[in-house]
Amino acid sequence: MNSIITVSREFGSGGRELGKRLADELGFAYYDREIVTALAEQTGMDEHYLERQLESGGVVSYPVHFAQTFSQISAVPDGAVQLLSLQTKLLRELAAKGDCVIVGRAADTVLEEYAPFRLFVCAEQEAKIRRCRQRASEGEELSDREILRQMKRIDRSRAEYHDIISSRLWGDKSAYHLCVNTTDIEIKAIVPGIAAYYRLWRKAQENAG
Amino acid sequence: MNSIITVSREFGSGGRELGKRLADELGFAYYDREIVTALAEQTGMDEHYLERQLESGGVVSYPVHFAQTFSQISAVPDGAVQLLSLQTKLLRELAAKGDCVIVGRAADTVLEEYAPFRLFVCAEQEAKIRRCRQRASEGEELSDREILRQMKRIDRSRAEYHDIISSRLWGDKSAYHLCVNTTDIEIKAIVPGIAAYYRLWRKAQENAG
Repeated sequence: MNSIITVSREFGSGGRELGKRLADELGFAYYDREIVTALAEQTGMDEHYLERQLESGGVVSYPVHFAQTFSQISAVPDGAVQLLSLQTKLLRELAAKGDCVIVGRAADTVLEEYAPFRLFVCAEQEAKIRRCRQRASEGEELSDREILRQMKRIDRSRAEYHDIISSRLWGDKSAYHLCVNTTDIEIKAIVPGIAAYYRLWRKAQENAG
Repeated sequence: MNSIITVSREFGSGGRELGKRLADELGFAYYDREIVTALAEQTGMDEHYLERQLESGGVVSYPVHFAQTFSQISAVPDGAVQLLSLQTKLLRELAAKGDCVIVGRAADTVLEEYAPFRLFVCAEQEAKIRRCRQRASEGEELSDREILRQMKRIDRSRAEYHDIISSRLWGDKSAYHLCVNTTDIEIKAIVPGIAAYYRLWRKAQENAG
């Protein structure tokens, strides 16, 4: 069975760069935007629209009133379900093709049958804000408060979508095999260490199984 | 400055074994019970009593009533403060002696000036219960519920003591450089991977500083 590494990450933690470099280090395929591009081709839909829809899984939240308490209910509307179903099919096709690293898209749950190595990438808030500022387009001036609001919104979307389809909680450290903190660290420098850990973990899994 | 690795861990996650093996792998000194033994010698107090006092930092929690709400306040009573102060002095002496791995004792905060590598060891609940059962003394028959209660009590004590003296939250993944999940894995098999990650992290820190 092919070896799959799934990368879940907080917005601004550099998880995408880490995933790409890890794939290069291990000689694995890497899938992230490629998935959106392929879906855009299949559906004829706009790539940016799709990206936004899939990032959050199209999840909508609404308040409900039950037994004297208010709470939030999250659900995926019909249109989004079809998109997610296409994405799931595509993820399975990619996993069947060969060893790969997949960033986001709740791949840790969708590809559960492959027993993927589940990696989580996080960082302290200040470090994430700095990283967002560094990668902002030229002329794009956002305040710390605006970046923070965007960060929270995107992480909340990721968590909501993930937790609808998974029995594990997004971001709960016990739900991942390894959580890496990228605060004040050059990602390039630590990737070979993650690869070394992964190789030993995989070998131990094979010996146990 | 000497290199320090601090290991924080959930009860039953195998953090102590992991810390010992990591120290052996890196050729570092290892401190855990040695600290209690040294304090027992200094104070003439019983080692088991000291162990229990220091595990929780002697923290006591009591309810307070303020502005129509009840909440819990945690504090360290005077007698325990003296013990903790002796422990802090000892931790600093050990850190000054040479490179080392220290398990627990809020060493991540006490030795902040050394910029230690902060490692957290966790596992899924079922795996921790299994590990506790394996290491129980012969004839010691505990139900899952009893183990779970003990586990929660000890982890709560660790968190309370840690969070009184630290600005970081015990168990919050962003407060550690690396969180390792030992669920269904042989600790011996993955330790060289953690050592590899640590060496690269340390090198990156030195290059940055």
